[in-house]
Amino acid sequence: MSEKKTTNIILFSGDYDKAMAAFIIANGAAAYDHEVTIFATFWGLNAFRKDEPVPVKKGFLENMFGKMMPRGAEKMGLSQMNFAGIGPKLIKRVMKKHNALPLGDLISMAQEQDVKLVACTMTMDLLGLQKEELIDGIEYAGVAAYLADAEDGNVNLFI
Amino acid sequence: MSEKKTTNIILFSGDYDKAMAAFIIANGAAAYDHEVTIFATFWGLNAFRKDEPVPVKKGFLENMFGKMMPRGAEKMGLSQMNFAGIGPKLIKRVMKKHNALPLGDLISMAQEQDVKLVACTMTMDLLGLQKEELIDGIEYAGVAAYLADAEDGNVNLFI
Amino acid sequence: MSEKKTTNIILFSGDYDKAMAAFIIANGAAAYDHEVTIFATFWGLNAFRKDEPVPVKKGFLENMFGKMMPRGAEKMGLSQMNFAGIGPKLIKRVMKKHNALPLGDLISMAQEQDVKLVACTMTMDLLGLQKEELIDGIEYAGVAAYLADAEDGNVNLFI
Repeated sequence: MSEKKTTNIILFSGDYDKAMAAFIIANGAAAYDHEVTIFATFWGLNAFRKDEPVPVKKGFLENMFGKMMPRGAEKMGLSQMNFAGIGPKLIKRVMKKHNALPLGDLISMAQEQDVKLVACTMTMDLLGLQKEELIDGIEYAGVAAYLADAEDGNVNLFI
Repeated sequence: MSEKKTTNIILFSGDYDKAMAAFIIANGAAAYDHEVTIFATFWGLNAFRKDEPVPVKKGFLENMFGKMMPRGAEKMGLSQMNFAGIGPKLIKRVMKKHNALPLGDLISMAQEQDVKLVACTMTMDLLGLQKEELIDGIEYAGVAAYLADAEDGNVNLFI
Repeated sequence: MSEKKTTNIILFSGDYDKAMAAFIIANGAAAYDHEVTIFATFWGLNAFRKDEPVPVKKGFLENMFGKMMPRGAEKMGLSQMNFAGIGPKLIKRVMKKHNALPLGDLISMAQEQDVKLVACTMTMDLLGLQKEELIDGIEYAGVAAYLADAEDGNVNLFI
């Protein structure tokens, strides 16, 4: 077959380090000419939030979730050694020192490489996130779309 | 080949939200006519616990683990924003508002769709969980059975 | 094809229980004659650390990370019920009682079964871990090497 290999990543986690891993793998796979999809669901959606507040109308609970969840990739915490927010600062300092790209840049790079970024509409609905609050250039779909991609995928990961 | 596609999910996590993701994917895949298996191991076994205590004889340590671990799907915490148990209550409230099924119902739906639910016997032994304490209609097996399913699987995930 | 089946595990987590799951699956797959690779990245690298300090020259931040991260498999915490370090002690006590192998032994068994253990060079660099600090008999590579293995893999997991 001359078909492209595919990599399909479910980004469930809202941790900065796990999202970094997801986008490093995605960018690597895209560089190796895979068709790559990142399907962000639950807390993973926070990586796709714009970093400034967007005025949208919401219910009380949805508004509260919106306020409590990190607004955008650079505000996410670490899965380990978070130390009340000091961990992410330290990690970013060593990343800068070693010329590693911050998460926001990894996401932009993924978009430039045509990695398909998909926001899970079911959890957007649950967490009260609206399209206006998410970054541009992403798609919106549900679990059926994920499965259609993944069932013929080469590398399927849940992060 | 006319063979069915297969989805094999290892449910390691004992978090409510991650278990929800596992069962939403499983139910979606079953609806798309996949053969689906959820292999619950370590804390993931808590999703299969009956919600009332079952009188079984255990050693001291096993008894302690049994008491400390959540008894059944609806008592599990969140992987993020758990806030000492308030998070799960909030999530369930928005789920109800948006007509999303609670985890217990997602598990029942999986059973109705013939998703194979397997409890990892090795970790049952370690954590002192006995068959009488787990919900009906599940199977019992070890890592060999998982690998036999997964090695020809289309979508393999560790959650 | 007469080719061997392959299992490729990314070990991202630095939790004792998740690392155990990774090595139990890896050892099982090796026993079933799979070619098995564990690619340790981020906190997963801690499983490959030697348990005694190794005198190496580091920058200030890298030194701090080195001191804060668990030194070797047996010092890692649990993903759930860690209870400030009591959880791992309890788990190890029940493991001993049930003759389950501790993580260190699972790693040795993996090496004896020719499971390929790979340390992610990019995150070694970030976290300031040097080859001298990691156990013997492992390989060093980046995400490209992982993808080359995984794109034809049968069982690909992110743990």
